[in-house]
Formats: sequence, structure tokens, C-alpha cells
Amino acid sequence: MLGRLNHVAIAVPDLGAAVARYRDTLGASVSAPQALPEHGVTVVFVELENTKTELLEPLGETSPIAAFLERNPSGGIHHMCYEVDDIIAARDRLKAQGVRVLGDGEPKTGAHGNPVLFLHPKDFDGTLIELEEVPAR
Amino acid sequence: MLGRLNHVAIAVPDLGAAVARYRDTLGASVSAPQALPEHGVTVVFVELENTKTELLEPLGETSPIAAFLERNPSGGIHHMCYEVDDIIAARDRLKAQGVRVLGDGEPKTGAHGNPVLFLHPKDFDGTLIELEEVPAR
Repeated sequence: MLGRLNHVAIAVPDLGAAVARYRDTLGASVSAPQALPEHGVTVVFVELENTKTELLEPLGETSPIAAFLERNPSGGIHHMCYEVDDIIAARDRLKAQGVRVLGDGEPKTGAHGNPVLFLHPKDFDGTLIELEEVPAR
Repeated sequence: MLGRLNHVAIAVPDLGAAVARYRDTLGASVSAPQALPEHGVTVVFVELENTKTELLEPLGETSPIAAFLERNPSGGIHHMCYEVDDIIAARDRLKAQGVRVLGDGEPKTGAHGNPVLFLHPKDFDGTLIELEEVPAR
């Protein structure tokens, strides 16, 4: 069921400083910042050969990463996103096995414009997992 | 400088249970467990199309992930490993920019048999970064 690792998301308190570290210190290829007010974050993509690291800074008053940064003021790895080809089939399979799907269980449109769901970290060794439906390439 | 994302490592308190979750619940392809006593872990590779998730369980009395699991008893994402083609050049570039390389700064042989170094998480937004020298493919 699990396809590619789409990205690893890191919550950061200062996006400009994080961009400098990845671009200048680590020598990675880094996108321009994109404000995604409907998702409560500004995001920068660190483009790797095989996947992406996403740097997320809170945007607005109700950012979904604000509480995480309160607990982890220096930042930290927030979630891992795996691709699936059918998110409804994936959700139904997981729910049938007792996995807790966050929210109301209905996919939302994620930051890349695709349907996404998040799975409860307590069901996966403390790891917040995002599933993203990505059309076959 | 940064090449591929080689793996994301997740520390887990119960490897058998974690394997069942990734293999049976998430439907991923999972390797047999490998005991690596010289690294203080038993590891299982979750094989994805483009990279790997590694599940790490402590092995022995001085496991490098024991303290992490004491702080995070349910487990959690422990580190991200990026490939570089010359780990000495990478280390020297990073040190010249003030990055703290863990240990004595000399590469050790990692779990895949390649030279590795770890960078201080306080220098990268709370993210423990492993660099692994991987010969050109």
C-alpha cells in the first residue's frame, strides 16, 4: 500500500535561518518560500535527488504546527508523508485494523493539492504519518 | 553537497510490534531483523520505492537510542540520513561554518558499512542529521 516517501516535514521557528542552513551550510537546493495561509504554514522545499525535506514555519494564529513548536522551541521533525494511490481504500483498510485517522476521517486537500489524511502517532511508534494520494506517474 | 535521503530512522520500543504495523497494517515491504551489536541496535528496513524507513530497537546495555526511548517511551523519529560523496570534505566544510560534529569528528563505520558522521541537532532545528558517504552509483 505504501508508495514513495513523498517528504519529511520539519517544523522550524525561523524559516529564514533554516533556509540558510540547508542552502548555504549543507549545500542543498532550496525553493522559494510559499505562504499557504489555508494550511497555516509557510513552506520551503529542500529538493533532494529522491525525495524532499519540507521546512515549515507557522503562519497565522491557528497554525497546526504551533503547539508542536511550543513543545519543541528549537524545532523538530514533525511528520513523514507516504504516497498511496487510493486514499479512500487506504483509509478504510487502516480503520478496519483499528488505526485512528485524525480529524473526521475525510481526506482534506493537502499543501500539494492532493487529498491527504493524517494517522495518529500513538498508532505508529510516536510518528505522525501523512498519507497523500498521488496519481500514478 | 547533500545527495539522496538514504533513510529516516525511527526508534521503537518493540520491534516485532512495529514490524507488524508497517508490514501488515500499512502493507509495506519489510526486511528480516538484523542484529547490529556493534551499533547497539536491531534494525528492520521498510523498503520504499525511493528510500527506506529504518526501525531501530535497542540492543545491549549501551544502545545509542536508549536515552531517546527513555524520553520518548512510545518511540519517535530519531534521525534523518543524507548521502554525501566525500564525508571528509563535507565534515571540513561544515566545521568551517561552525556546525558541531558529534563525537571526536572522525567518521565511524555505520550500519551499512559506510563512513558516517552525526551533526548536532541544535544546529539543524532540532533534527539529528546523519551523513553517510555512499560511493557514486
